[in-house]
Amino acid sequence: MGSRITDSALYGHLWGTDELRAIFDEPARIGSWLNILAVLARAQAEVGLVPEAAASAIAAHANVELLNLDLVQEEIRTSGHSTLGLIRGLQEVLPPEAQEWVYYGATVQDLTDTWTALVMKQVGAIVWRDLRLIEEVLLDLTERHRDTLMAGRTHGQLASPITFGYKAAGWADEVRRHLHRLREIAARCLVGQLGGGAGSLAFFGDRGLDLRNRFCALLGLNDPVISWTSSRDRVTEFVHLLALVASTLARIGNEVYELQRPEIGELREPAGAGSVGSITMPHKRNPEMSEHLVTLGRLVRSSAGVILEGTVQEHERDGRAWKAEWVAFPEVCLLTGTALQFAHRILAGLEVDQSAMRRNLTGWEVSEKVLSFLAPDVGKHIAQALLQQALAEGGEKGLSVRRSLATSDVIRAHLDPKILESILDGADPGESPQMADEVVARARKQRVTEPELWP
Amino acid sequence: MGSRITDSALYGHLWGTDELRAIFDEPARIGSWLNILAVLARAQAEVGLVPEAAASAIAAHANVELLNLDLVQEEIRTSGHSTLGLIRGLQEVLPPEAQEWVYYGATVQDLTDTWTALVMKQVGAIVWRDLRLIEEVLLDLTERHRDTLMAGRTHGQLASPITFGYKAAGWADEVRRHLHRLREIAARCLVGQLGGGAGSLAFFGDRGLDLRNRFCALLGLNDPVISWTSSRDRVTEFVHLLALVASTLARIGNEVYELQRPEIGELREPAGAGSVGSITMPHKRNPEMSEHLVTLGRLVRSSAGVILEGTVQEHERDGRAWKAEWVAFPEVCLLTGTALQFAHRILAGLEVDQSAMRRNLTGWEVSEKVLSFLAPDVGKHIAQALLQQALAEGGEKGLSVRRSLATSDVIRAHLDPKILESILDGADPGESPQMADEVVARARKQRVTEPELWP
Amino acid sequence: MGSRITDSALYGHLWGTDELRAIFDEPARIGSWLNILAVLARAQAEVGLVPEAAASAIAAHANVELLNLDLVQEEIRTSGHSTLGLIRGLQEVLPPEAQEWVYYGATVQDLTDTWTALVMKQVGAIVWRDLRLIEEVLLDLTERHRDTLMAGRTHGQLASPITFGYKAAGWADEVRRHLHRLREIAARCLVGQLGGGAGSLAFFGDRGLDLRNRFCALLGLNDPVISWTSSRDRVTEFVHLLALVASTLARIGNEVYELQRPEIGELREPAGAGSVGSITMPHKRNPEMSEHLVTLGRLVRSSAGVILEGTVQEHERDGRAWKAEWVAFPEVCLLTGTALQFAHRILAGLEVDQSAMRRNLTGWEVSEKVLSFLAPDVGKHIAQALLQQALAEGGEKGLSVRRSLATSDVIRAHLDPKILESILDGADPGESPQMADEVVARARKQRVTEPELWP
Amino acid sequence: MGSRITDSALYGHLWGTDELRAIFDEPARIGSWLNILAVLARAQAEVGLVPEAAASAIAAHANVELLNLDLVQEEIRTSGHSTLGLIRGLQEVLPPEAQEWVYYGATVQDLTDTWTALVMKQVGAIVWRDLRLIEEVLLDLTERHRDTLMAGRTHGQLASPITFGYKAAGWADEVRRHLHRLREIAARCLVGQLGGGAGSLAFFGDRGLDLRNRFCALLGLNDPVISWTSSRDRVTEFVHLLALVASTLARIGNEVYELQRPEIGELREPAGAGSVGSITMPHKRNPEMSEHLVTLGRLVRSSAGVILEGTVQEHERDGRAWKAEWVAFPEVCLLTGTALQFAHRILAGLEVDQSAMRRNLTGWEVSEKVLSFLAPDVGKHIAQALLQQALAEGGEKGLSVRRSLATSDVIRAHLDPKILESILDGADPGESPQMADEVVARARKQRVTEPELWP
Repeated sequence: MGSRITDSALYGHLWGTDELRAIFDEPARIGSWLNILAVLARAQAEVGLVPEAAASAIAAHANVELLNLDLVQEEIRTSGHSTLGLIRGLQEVLPPEAQEWVYYGATVQDLTDTWTALVMKQVGAIVWRDLRLIEEVLLDLTERHRDTLMAGRTHGQLASPITFGYKAAGWADEVRRHLHRLREIAARCLVGQLGGGAGSLAFFGDRGLDLRNRFCALLGLNDPVISWTSSRDRVTEFVHLLALVASTLARIGNEVYELQRPEIGELREPAGAGSVGSITMPHKRNPEMSEHLVTLGRLVRSSAGVILEGTVQEHERDGRAWKAEWVAFPEVCLLTGTALQFAHRILAGLEVDQSAMRRNLTGWEVSEKVLSFLAPDVGKHIAQALLQQALAEGGEKGLSVRRSLATSDVIRAHLDPKILESILDGADPGESPQMADEVVARARKQRVTEPELWP
Repeated sequence: MGSRITDSALYGHLWGTDELRAIFDEPARIGSWLNILAVLARAQAEVGLVPEAAASAIAAHANVELLNLDLVQEEIRTSGHSTLGLIRGLQEVLPPEAQEWVYYGATVQDLTDTWTALVMKQVGAIVWRDLRLIEEVLLDLTERHRDTLMAGRTHGQLASPITFGYKAAGWADEVRRHLHRLREIAARCLVGQLGGGAGSLAFFGDRGLDLRNRFCALLGLNDPVISWTSSRDRVTEFVHLLALVASTLARIGNEVYELQRPEIGELREPAGAGSVGSITMPHKRNPEMSEHLVTLGRLVRSSAGVILEGTVQEHERDGRAWKAEWVAFPEVCLLTGTALQFAHRILAGLEVDQSAMRRNLTGWEVSEKVLSFLAPDVGKHIAQALLQQALAEGGEKGLSVRRSLATSDVIRAHLDPKILESILDGADPGESPQMADEVVARARKQRVTEPELWP
Repeated sequence: MGSRITDSALYGHLWGTDELRAIFDEPARIGSWLNILAVLARAQAEVGLVPEAAASAIAAHANVELLNLDLVQEEIRTSGHSTLGLIRGLQEVLPPEAQEWVYYGATVQDLTDTWTALVMKQVGAIVWRDLRLIEEVLLDLTERHRDTLMAGRTHGQLASPITFGYKAAGWADEVRRHLHRLREIAARCLVGQLGGGAGSLAFFGDRGLDLRNRFCALLGLNDPVISWTSSRDRVTEFVHLLALVASTLARIGNEVYELQRPEIGELREPAGAGSVGSITMPHKRNPEMSEHLVTLGRLVRSSAGVILEGTVQEHERDGRAWKAEWVAFPEVCLLTGTALQFAHRILAGLEVDQSAMRRNLTGWEVSEKVLSFLAPDVGKHIAQALLQQALAEGGEKGLSVRRSLATSDVIRAHLDPKILESILDGADPGESPQMADEVVARARKQRVTEPELWP
Repeated sequence: MGSRITDSALYGHLWGTDELRAIFDEPARIGSWLNILAVLARAQAEVGLVPEAAASAIAAHANVELLNLDLVQEEIRTSGHSTLGLIRGLQEVLPPEAQEWVYYGATVQDLTDTWTALVMKQVGAIVWRDLRLIEEVLLDLTERHRDTLMAGRTHGQLASPITFGYKAAGWADEVRRHLHRLREIAARCLVGQLGGGAGSLAFFGDRGLDLRNRFCALLGLNDPVISWTSSRDRVTEFVHLLALVASTLARIGNEVYELQRPEIGELREPAGAGSVGSITMPHKRNPEMSEHLVTLGRLVRSSAGVILEGTVQEHERDGRAWKAEWVAFPEVCLLTGTALQFAHRILAGLEVDQSAMRRNLTGWEVSEKVLSFLAPDVGKHIAQALLQQALAEGGEKGLSVRRSLATSDVIRAHLDPKILESILDGADPGESPQMADEVVARARKQRVTEPELWP
């Protein structure tokens, strides 16, 4: 075992957090399954299907530490059945009078889908918490850098100026939308499953609906109204949201990666004490964590694609799509959760080099402003032509942008020299600060009224 | 031109509907862009940036039929700029005093993103309407077949009985969840874009925020608060929902495809008059439309993947991801909309062969029921072993399932012969009808109170 | 650790084989890395860069069991560097005079890419061997069932007859093409990496090219001519081939799944002793392994997509794409290798129910043949219309296909009753057996001359 | 019609070339189908299945310009059959004695798969030609810039120096591997299809195999040995290669995009006369074509994924996967072909700013070299620590890298000042030029002996 680098002793910290591993590790998963079996027996006792004593005995023994996992493993392999090994393992430790009441009338998906819902509850809570922590950092960055001028960049080229607060506000706003989404989907995702063989509840006679209701209530899940064994939009919706979250974080990571280039030097992810950039080239400081957000984003998207494909299921259960979910769903959760931690670390320690930001405003950024001053009188499209001409003429003389414009006859013919000078001296971020303000104000207001815990 | 089979004269009906084509066809797209330019000028006039007369002239001439499209095309190719051709084309037909006020301070994405929002509004309305039409058909199928017995199937094998109404209700419930989702995302998706060069609104001096507000209001869109040029979660969220919708329809189509197999014969998609299954094999009746839902689902998922990947954008505009959206976003809309039409046609004319459904209940379906009667006394896991034994013994003698159980000593030792007989005579769909009822009741209630039009 | 179900103690056998795990397990991977370091030192000693004694000491201590893995792990986390921990761990166990000569001038990718090439060599050999084993089984099935009549199926509907040998031959031919592909790509994939910092070999002065040559030769790999740190087509090509292989196996698995439906019943995957289909429904025999081939195919495709995306790397090393390869590349190998084992097991024990195949030839299959007899005289398109008419008329009277044709006046008017009768009595698989023969003959011939071991 | 921007009059040049459109445009596709029908009749005449006169008449009338396409379209929609409309359209223009011999015994895939093979032949030839043209440009760039020093970059950070010729050689080598691949796959891809209903050739009696052989030979295709209607690895292999090609071009495009950043300024894609970077910001020169290579790469990968998914087909024909191929396969060809043209234009006019490359060698690049001189005496890992220390100390004093090293006592203690000076003065690209030389030499040699035309 242990052939996945994602669970490697050496590299596992790149692909999971302790908190998430505590949900998905095999003992935890088995433990959760056992707990579901115990709750099922309890609910069955309540509706009169299972003797009270049996339910209590099951609850008392549904503990992964009591089980002989070698036996469980052996039975799984022999039977080729997904849960039979577990059941036999549990039966073995139960008193005889309870043995027959385990997994009473349930089918594998009753167990695994309900587990999935419970996991969505735990993971959703983590995502909610971490997104809010990240939002807090982003709002703080936004405020601190409300007026920190930097070049906007489009197509990788220098464009009109913005402020770094504006950039951070764009991230924060995206994060806030994810928070809204997470609240909206909760009721649809946190839903139990209980149906037996083909989902009809037939095994339970006329107590099926009551039983399902109790079962879900005891687990803190919603009742599904109808079995959803091959209706996977609930899971897919959750995964889609996590993929969106991971993509936002990848976008932030990629931005840091690019702006940390030494030729740009505007941002730098924090370097831990003892961190080593390169062995061969001791000078280097690689944006390892920022890169990693992009990596995680790719892997999450890939697994999300498996989940979406799996929505096209056949009949009342389709093992072909369902088993792929076994692998892809936890992967999405583990990697997105890891990305949230990395992103928080990067943003909380982000080094913002304001002087580099200033330095990269090399004059190009004034053209939109000059244009806006020329346009009303000269006409915008004509102004544009004038500007192109001035810059071309200056360029031929080897002049800088500012110098080209300052000395251009065609420009000076239409623009008061004083105004021109003031434009060339400054960099106008337009309404960047105001937009940032509004993002912050709105978010802060919502943070106060919304619950700290999800759902 | 015309190299895509999706726009083929002969096969185009498989990959688009007239209604959707009327949104995405080039003249319509250009027309919508021109309208956005006219609204921009109007809003600019209202906030005092553009002369009233210019705005009126632009509105009067922003008509695709007035434009010299050859010139537009030529300019696009020469300039390598996405919208310059269009602007020059429009300028050419404008009176001189208006020519300079076109596209005043705007950037390409102000045009294309706002167009995308307007398109989401139109497409969302179609999806809403068609999902509700499909839901209506599904609810009707659910009610009519509330008690129509059929085999449940898991892993492609016969399982416990369900009713066809239960199956249809599962589809209906998925559709209803999509309707809820569509309502939730409206406010986030239907948002305009206006920012100029790098999104800062700097060109518009201190009137930027007012201008954007007016611009959005005139178009019936929400104000974005902050520019979202490289923040694509709004579009991705819409696309994700359409991909979920298309996957649901693919699931339905696939189910019809499988159940239309002659060896099963439970469902048949409607055959049009004059339809020909196969030339070589004249007997055939292919589930062409049902298959096509699966095909469309695959293509939608693929384009949705491009959109999700595009969420990881760089800086304030990233042409690498953005241009891919130009192709993938309309594709998702066109194909999902087509799938909705096909699905409606299939479901509205669906042939349900109740006798075939009955015929396929060949005895296997009773085992869960027998088990449920044996379990309370014998113990469930022991009962299961007994059942296995009885079926194995019967099988060796060449007996049918029912016969094996009816004549099995081990079964008869634990089950009253009368009860056994009644189980073997019937097929118990459990709570399938009740679950179907509740799905219908809930949906009907919501249909009454929700708006007929989206958003 | 252990949060991936793919490495689960209970379910890991579904997602890996012992043989492949022995390649990818962490100790094995670390061991292979250490061996590469030892070979590097050896090659460096040979070209005079490293003292002979140091190289020997490194070789003697490059053993994962000597290392303090806790220290290695700690250093990896502190340094944030991918291999520094390993190096420090190795240094610790080396005699002082060798400590400085470890990882001399190498960079991470020199280690990991060379490891990837070595892994491709091992995995390729397994794929080669297993594909040939599967081919052997398929050729045998083809021969045994050369004349086993069964229905062809198109669009899920019954079509003209084929033989099961023809179907198996189609699979075999696909497998053979994979074998050809595997031989072709070997030279491009089995290539070492050595370049240092940015791939220039500068660290090694004028001995760089010699060193790389020796290094590769000692490892049994080809020299790359130029560093390929960000040129990932070699790896992608290998992965693409494995994805094709996994897709072929998924196609076979899916076919078994469909033909194992009880309503069809033509194929059945082997059931192990003790295997349990369903707990709730004791009668069931699920095609679990066949389904699983489809599942594995999906997951392989998904990871292959990550690798293909990773081909678009930036500069001389791009951590964003490269680290994703760390996860996705082993996944493709592990899952494809598992699929090969499952496929072999399914095919080697495949139950072919010839009588069910016969039974499903319910008359529809004769139409192409009748058509071919009518066509020369009547005209093919007219014949087709006659056939449609005859079948429609028979259908209205409730007649079977054979009966409809046998009693149809329009058919009998154009076809000698004896010929008609002989067509209706038989099912003509056309050249299916001959095509199968040729596939077998060609494959057997190639199997004799090709090497048993790859590459 | 015309709702896809890929076929837009205004933007279509971004998503197709005239040459490729001449293959995929509807009239061309229909024309090719008609030609296949004519060849089929011809081959059938040769083996005695169809009257000679009928075959000649079909050949004479199999011309798209003779057809009433409105009728064809109408029939396609009424019949729901993929080719029936075309056949009826062709029959209508044929003399009565030929009408019945059209499409004699063929099925849709006989037509469409054979067409796909013919298209692969045409597209493969274009890819071969354009890859060789691009290789020529790359070899030339490699030679011209064999010694043009520039910074290597890893993780977006400055690394040891390389030469631009080395970078170009890495691209060239990747292109050469694609050329090898293209030659290898030809025999497997260029294969006809003829089988009738379920692929068995039954319609053609005992002349089936001969007929198929003649049919393929007349079309210049290989005989497939066995029908491959649901065996799509041939098409997928071709698509995989094109996806690799498109990814290589995307990698090149992305590299230009990044190195064209004004802060780096080392490369610039050619600007056409009249090209306009930005309207709002007249100074801008966007790397539009380079970006577009990345965009095209994404879309190609996405469609390639659809093709790979389609490899898992069911039975003897599977409309669900097959129809998706109708869309995705041409898309891959059209977009990859377009990318080849763009890439050639970018590379042929690429502006290489050698002084900017020099300027970006700001000192960091010497560290690996200093390390390599210190290592033999001091020990590599100790040398590394010294270097880190020297740079840290220099950094604190605000010294540049070169200055830090030049004045560092710890460095000077171990390195002869003259040697140190010479290292600091230069930038050593190691064996970059030699590796580039070998790539060029090998490619040139192969270019001479290989055919100019593919296959």
